[in-house]
Amino acid sequence: MTITRRDMLTRAAALSTITAAPAAMARVAAPPRSVERWGVYEIALDGPREGKPFDDVQVAATFEGWGTRVKVPGFYDGDGVYRIRFSPPELGQWRWTSESNNASLAGRSGSFDAIAPAKDNHGPVRISKDGYHFAYADGTPFRQIGTTCYSWALQSDAKCAETLKTLGSAPFNKMRMLVFPNVESVATNPFARTGDGLRAWDPTRFDPAYFRRYEDRIQRLGALGIEADVILYHPYDEKRGYSDMKREDDERYVRYISARFGAYRNVWWSMANEYDDVESKSIEDWDHLFQILVAADPHDRLRSIHQINTYYDHRKPWITHASIQNGAAVLDDLRAELHRAFTLKPVIFDEVVYEGNLAERWGQLTGEEMVERFWFGLIGGTYVGHSETIDPGRNADSSWLGKGGKLVGNSAPRLAFLRRIMEEGPVPGIEPIQPWWNYHIGGKQHEYFLKYFGSEQPTEWQVVLPGRGEAALQTYRADIIDSWNMTITPVNGVFRMARKNQYDVHDPARPTLPLPGKPWIAVRMVKV
Amino acid sequence: MTITRRDMLTRAAALSTITAAPAAMARVAAPPRSVERWGVYEIALDGPREGKPFDDVQVAATFEGWGTRVKVPGFYDGDGVYRIRFSPPELGQWRWTSESNNASLAGRSGSFDAIAPAKDNHGPVRISKDGYHFAYADGTPFRQIGTTCYSWALQSDAKCAETLKTLGSAPFNKMRMLVFPNVESVATNPFARTGDGLRAWDPTRFDPAYFRRYEDRIQRLGALGIEADVILYHPYDEKRGYSDMKREDDERYVRYISARFGAYRNVWWSMANEYDDVESKSIEDWDHLFQILVAADPHDRLRSIHQINTYYDHRKPWITHASIQNGAAVLDDLRAELHRAFTLKPVIFDEVVYEGNLAERWGQLTGEEMVERFWFGLIGGTYVGHSETIDPGRNADSSWLGKGGKLVGNSAPRLAFLRRIMEEGPVPGIEPIQPWWNYHIGGKQHEYFLKYFGSEQPTEWQVVLPGRGEAALQTYRADIIDSWNMTITPVNGVFRMARKNQYDVHDPARPTLPLPGKPWIAVRMVKV
Repeated sequence: MTITRRDMLTRAAALSTITAAPAAMARVAAPPRSVERWGVYEIALDGPREGKPFDDVQVAATFEGWGTRVKVPGFYDGDGVYRIRFSPPELGQWRWTSESNNASLAGRSGSFDAIAPAKDNHGPVRISKDGYHFAYADGTPFRQIGTTCYSWALQSDAKCAETLKTLGSAPFNKMRMLVFPNVESVATNPFARTGDGLRAWDPTRFDPAYFRRYEDRIQRLGALGIEADVILYHPYDEKRGYSDMKREDDERYVRYISARFGAYRNVWWSMANEYDDVESKSIEDWDHLFQILVAADPHDRLRSIHQINTYYDHRKPWITHASIQNGAAVLDDLRAELHRAFTLKPVIFDEVVYEGNLAERWGQLTGEEMVERFWFGLIGGTYVGHSETIDPGRNADSSWLGKGGKLVGNSAPRLAFLRRIMEEGPVPGIEPIQPWWNYHIGGKQHEYFLKYFGSEQPTEWQVVLPGRGEAALQTYRADIIDSWNMTITPVNGVFRMARKNQYDVHDPARPTLPLPGKPWIAVRMVKV
Repeated sequence: MTITRRDMLTRAAALSTITAAPAAMARVAAPPRSVERWGVYEIALDGPREGKPFDDVQVAATFEGWGTRVKVPGFYDGDGVYRIRFSPPELGQWRWTSESNNASLAGRSGSFDAIAPAKDNHGPVRISKDGYHFAYADGTPFRQIGTTCYSWALQSDAKCAETLKTLGSAPFNKMRMLVFPNVESVATNPFARTGDGLRAWDPTRFDPAYFRRYEDRIQRLGALGIEADVILYHPYDEKRGYSDMKREDDERYVRYISARFGAYRNVWWSMANEYDDVESKSIEDWDHLFQILVAADPHDRLRSIHQINTYYDHRKPWITHASIQNGAAVLDDLRAELHRAFTLKPVIFDEVVYEGNLAERWGQLTGEEMVERFWFGLIGGTYVGHSETIDPGRNADSSWLGKGGKLVGNSAPRLAFLRRIMEEGPVPGIEPIQPWWNYHIGGKQHEYFLKYFGSEQPTEWQVVLPGRGEAALQTYRADIIDSWNMTITPVNGVFRMARKNQYDVHDPARPTLPLPGKPWIAVRMVKV
């Protein structure tokens, strides 16, 4: 039997109440003749259910199309069903042939057409050509506004539906989410149980239902236009020990995750959260698991790793972008920029402490402080991640950070406003302008400048823009942006730039711009 | 003939007028039976002067002592003399045997005693055990206060003597200096001349006199307690092209430099100045030359490389410390600290633009701005380098930066004052205190805290120190330091720290410290 399944959920379906649908996916539907480019084409094959299918049976298919060949590993989904998931990177006909060490799975073949993507399907997110930003495969800029709900996907269907509803009207386009639970969850068993104890599980036997639930969540995020930053390991499960497996079990797990989830175009890989707190693994272990992942993932999804104390070496070639935890770096755009100077890659400050009401300093930012970090990160040419630790019991586990649910903080609407500013800005993103010279301005040289004043309350700004040569002698219009009250106030008239010195330009007739003397103000200068 | 030569110059000899002494070194003196530990034991052997001695003759000696064996490559010094220089790392007897592909140089042997070092001989500078600072081999902390005079060693003897005299009463303990000239110089020919043109030189034939002059300068710096940061390549010699040699010529050059200079205990290697502006060499070339250097240098001197735009990957294992050029990083201690977070090594901001009177922004700092950078670097747990671009003709080539000579700026005395503050501080150096939490305080937890206010002019400081647990409940005395006027004003009484919150301590009876409302103030809190 050869079966295929639907592309990603529609937005309406994503927000519909979650039912038992994921479990019912197996063995359904006749094979469609076509799948959207960047959609998911799935082959399901009947095979052996005896023995140790996760270890003993290898299955893969080689897809040929658009002058290329791609070998895609499959996985065992339980109940005698083996699946191979492929996301066609190009339009046109794709033919496939399966291979396997099991005769019942080998030598199967088929074909399908990759057709034009629907309007909201821009393909997977890749690194932009300049190397410091992100863009969808169709070239649309991806302006990252991230959030984190560690174990949201493992909560009850009702709770997950609530989280999705929240996300449906929130600004976030990337969700950091753990595969293994870190807080009280409904789904806690990625592996087959072998007894009553928390440690009574068999790493050689995955529980397909656990992963089926998780990939349903991935797809529902995708339907909302949200990237799923899938975190493979974390240090917070000492009781169950999922992050402390032996190497061969880790390898099997990484390959399984890759084969199951990797075809969904909104998947990103985060190898670990706070990798350096996972005591059972060394740098060499992480490097090794990246090699396994790179080899196992024909879709070449984005790859990162997140630290607590010691920055991983983000220049290693398997890292596509830097995922950074730092509480103070994004209080200064030039600190943020230095992360680009060192990594030579796009930088996301995925954890900058949280908006919250905790007693701990890592969970007590005001909304203003949370938003300020996004703005300084932006001016420095980087991206920032949000989360909330607001809970009546001041318990982070019960907050948005732990389980998802509702957003109750003040930052999210301002991040939606920021996203609008970003989307109106240069492509592929805001660049730090001459960071070596302490201008604290982002934008695009000779076209667009963004100055942000943070908590300062200036009553005027001396309008001096960096730029040498004739190209700097442009005329600009200005907007005064109140990043907290979410207003954009156009400034009357224009600034006609003349040379001020060999490095800078200004308008001699209009050297300063009056500002409202309030905090959280930015000025945007756009070439007319 | 087996001859040895003196250890490093004495301080008095270093400051004496430079004469033709270097050239007269060859073939002198009976072999001493002893050399100071970390001094230089030199073997000179007569050998062939025909053919191509630099390429055709290999000579080395294996030294045995203190239970170890060290193979030390030699070099051809012209006029039929081959030299092998060894700096004994340990006390006691060392026996040696030579080997060579030339019979006249092979199978020679001898021995000497490495005796206790003189008072001012602390050995070579190494990385401190904690990994972020420097210490001499005898354990004495090395508090780096660097300067740069690119081509000082290539100037006339009179000019060199003037530079040394200046250094004799200046605070600098590291000098960055080019091997190849970048400005008008007396010595311009490291290689044998083959004609009249600037490019008429033979990379296969070194001019020993050029290197003899240079190593004399190294020794005179050593006698003044100054490390010689020897820069092997730079991008400013397009006319002569010394930095654009072929790989085999580069390899010969690196080996020659290492064999000639490496035994002097004050030598550091800087592979290049602004490596990324040397258009003829790629990252792979630089990596390769580091391999050559590591293999050629049995003394294992410190190794770095300096950039203009693109940070080299300082985590590469052959890099001992990061040498950084950045104009804005050391305006903020937390930007400085991030360089440690990325490199996991000691960091020296060897170029932070200069105190000077140039029209160009890279050479027009005030003295105050130069000194400010050193202080912020210090608070961030890093080190900074100075230079001056002050010249009546506003020509950097003629300034201290280009040729040495006299210091005429205002920063040097304040750097001497800073060095005193550093020497009174914790061992091995100032650590950034909880940089993740934006305290902007350096020191040593529970013992010593240093707060620096830069150009701010506060009239009081809220004395809140980071620290958890009982260990933080210390009593401190305070000094108010005026880093520009070079005064240290003890504060009457003490601060008895009590818990302020779970993260911080303060003295409830004395929550603030009055400050003079001037710029460039620091406060030092020392446990009593």
